Amino acid sequence: MSVYSNVGISAIEVYFPTRRVKQEDFEEADKRSKGNYTIGLGQIKMAFTGPEEDVISFSKTVVQRLLEKNAVDIQKVGRIEVGTETIVDHSKSIKTYLMEHFLGNPFIEGCDTYNACYGATSALFNAVDYTRLYGKYSIVVASDIAIYGGPSLDARHTGGAGAVAMLITPNAPLVVDLDRKVMSAHVYDFHKPNTSIEFPYVEGKLSTDCYLQALALTHQGIKQLHSSQGKTFSMSNYDYQIFHAPFNKMIMKAHAFLTQLDADQTKTDPTTDLSTIVIPDPKSMTELVKQTKQSFDEKVGPSTLVPRLIGNSYTATLFMSLASILHTEPEEKLNGKSVFCFSYGSGLIAAIWSVKINKGSDEFPLSKLIHNLSNIQTLLDSEIVTTVPEFEAVMKAREDQLNLTHQPFNKNSPQPKDALIYATENPGPVIGSGVFYLKEITHDLRRTYVRKE
Amino acid sequence: MSVYSNVGISAIEVYFPTRRVKQEDFEEADKRSKGNYTIGLGQIKMAFTGPEEDVISFSKTVVQRLLEKNAVDIQKVGRIEVGTETIVDHSKSIKTYLMEHFLGNPFIEGCDTYNACYGATSALFNAVDYTRLYGKYSIVVASDIAIYGGPSLDARHTGGAGAVAMLITPNAPLVVDLDRKVMSAHVYDFHKPNTSIEFPYVEGKLSTDCYLQALALTHQGIKQLHSSQGKTFSMSNYDYQIFHAPFNKMIMKAHAFLTQLDADQTKTDPTTDLSTIVIPDPKSMTELVKQTKQSFDEKVGPSTLVPRLIGNSYTATLFMSLASILHTEPEEKLNGKSVFCFSYGSGLIAAIWSVKINKGSDEFPLSKLIHNLSNIQTLLDSEIVTTVPEFEAVMKAREDQLNLTHQPFNKNSPQPKDALIYATENPGPVIGSGVFYLKEITHDLRRTYVRKE
Repeated sequence: MSVYSNVGISAIEVYFPTRRVKQEDFEEADKRSKGNYTIGLGQIKMAFTGPEEDVISFSKTVVQRLLEKNAVDIQKVGRIEVGTETIVDHSKSIKTYLMEHFLGNPFIEGCDTYNACYGATSALFNAVDYTRLYGKYSIVVASDIAIYGGPSLDARHTGGAGAVAMLITPNAPLVVDLDRKVMSAHVYDFHKPNTSIEFPYVEGKLSTDCYLQALALTHQGIKQLHSSQGKTFSMSNYDYQIFHAPFNKMIMKAHAFLTQLDADQTKTDPTTDLSTIVIPDPKSMTELVKQTKQSFDEKVGPSTLVPRLIGNSYTATLFMSLASILHTEPEEKLNGKSVFCFSYGSGLIAAIWSVKINKGSDEFPLSKLIHNLSNIQTLLDSEIVTTVPEFEAVMKAREDQLNLTHQPFNKNSPQPKDALIYATENPGPVIGSGVFYLKEITHDLRRTYVRKE
Repeated sequence: MSVYSNVGISAIEVYFPTRRVKQEDFEEADKRSKGNYTIGLGQIKMAFTGPEEDVISFSKTVVQRLLEKNAVDIQKVGRIEVGTETIVDHSKSIKTYLMEHFLGNPFIEGCDTYNACYGATSALFNAVDYTRLYGKYSIVVASDIAIYGGPSLDARHTGGAGAVAMLITPNAPLVVDLDRKVMSAHVYDFHKPNTSIEFPYVEGKLSTDCYLQALALTHQGIKQLHSSQGKTFSMSNYDYQIFHAPFNKMIMKAHAFLTQLDADQTKTDPTTDLSTIVIPDPKSMTELVKQTKQSFDEKVGPSTLVPRLIGNSYTATLFMSLASILHTEPEEKLNGKSVFCFSYGSGLIAAIWSVKINKGSDEFPLSKLIHNLSNIQTLLDSEIVTTVPEFEAVMKAREDQLNLTHQPFNKNSPQPKDALIYATENPGPVIGSGVFYLKEITHDLRRTYVRKE
């Protein structure tokens, strides 16, 4: 059994929609005090989209652009994995829609993987392990539309939307380390149990507590793992840190808490029970965040560019953070650096893993990976900023479309199966050039997509 | 990077519910001619369950029994993957519910994987690849409840329900071969796009055609793979054959078509387009099935025990077939044998893979794996046979429960979050001893489970 080495990320493609709301406008609309969302959460804007886009169109956009910009030989691709928590169909995977981009090579493994914001990390691990064993390329897609309403309406300003596609190959410029530590537990901190709506049920305080407790437990786990290998785990080994970013303040707290945990050299009995892990009280946390501001700015700051401007894109957020570092830091500074990664998905599951940056191979050099991320600035610049009432109207249109797909279907009704229940006549400026959008939904709920010229 | 060898299945646990309807009763109720379902589809009975069970309770039952019967050291488990197409939650995975069975070891990777009936095969590949690379044990769960109604009501007799859990370790008695061939394409043969109902949209003829075309294409692919390794692929290398079994006639056709394909030594240009693959016309197929009856009985027959008596348990069906062989064939005959496996999931994705049977290790001998499958007979015997109207009443109760979970949730309503919207007071004889059932659903849609003593 041959094993391929230095497997990791050789190309990244990012997409997020054009429409944005300013967090300061949400503050005003929600009658919150100034700074509540902008400083309290640390967010600037939130990206959102209407019924003309879904997680499938997002995925098609990033995959097609990934293939084109990197001239990927599709015959070398052996696996595609999609991570999402925006479920459009209870059976047919998004991955099957992506097969239209691989005509000529049907021999591609993989399907969709789900657990809140963690799905794409699981997809990445599956893909990396596959490429380690089989040598063929993999593609990992993270695609989500985070919308709050109904039971979680008061969290609507913490939404977001976007997708990332990553090419996984041997001898990659971003090598995913073999060592990783994952922990999981049964908790109802955030779930989507009403499958007739797009909205989650959220226990905000519980979820942020669980996030920090999971960080502490995986940190304990990776320390033990390194120790069992005769190595010493230390955060000082990492030049950058990325954390799953539901909002920016969360990762400031995560960074602060982790810094404290890592500095603590007292020998304590390891715990295996998440709920016994003590997290700092609010006052101590505020103090910790202050104390660690400089290292946050240095090690985490470069990762916050996209997430602060578009919000939480669930599975995609962590990879938006990774892309932000690569886009904002000078290339000569990146070569040789290590990135600490923390993934979190409610329900729950979390992982500490890491990436080592090198100059890559002739086929996939680091310079090309970085160059191809230059469209991040284009995406950021091509924003259409809307008012809160405009945002609400678009959300209503999404909900109306969803409800149309929940109408009872009568096989014997006079309406033909291919009659349209939804159509995007002209997507207008909200869809950029080269972006896929949802063209039609038929009476039997088939979706067709078109790429805007 | 170390790689562990002879990774495969070391233990299997099977569960399916007690309630059954006879296919002959469906024939009468549906005013079909006698034999239409029993001979036409080759099915005997169909298992089903009411609102007191779901795919989570199924999964808990098989995992807990797997752990107990095999005295699994939970510290050795590093991954759990669940395959299903019965989506109860759009965010929280079934895997997180299973963490309650691993208290003391939170460090377990994996989440849920979806693509129609294929999810558990993808989960198996993920788990096997993980154990190959990391050496720790994995657990794979397949859990589904197949119900037809609404747009697919005329297929209601092709439902089924059940779950399988498998322990994956190195040096296993059922070694999963490294060689596998997967193909995938974008087709609407079966999907579940209305996420407010439990029912799929089915194009029956298209789906059975796609199944056979996917079989031909993966067969072409595995032949090429073996050829590239200097080996010759031949079905004569396999002692047993298992096929994803939506109904028994489907796998008789699959076996017949594959026998014809494998015998055909004419050199034809390989195709990569599923739709260009010609399948035998109905008359030729009937003839082929007749001609291959003897080899079907020998090589496929032993796998049909459970699927013919319980119906299509979607992701679990293929593993019910594998378990059926191990349960029905004499142990001394099994050692050294090879099993050809064909997985299919609509949408679509299919795989040819294989298993080699050996006597296993001291810890996980083949004899123990077989002995632990003896409860299959108990499960088959403990059936509660109902009439079609009784079946319809149970389906109505399931639908009522689902609709309760789709009620709008008002955070400010006087009803407390933990008020019950559903409770199973006394599950009665439909739940066997040692089986988990759904005890309650609260107003904020949390589910609790209890194990029947």
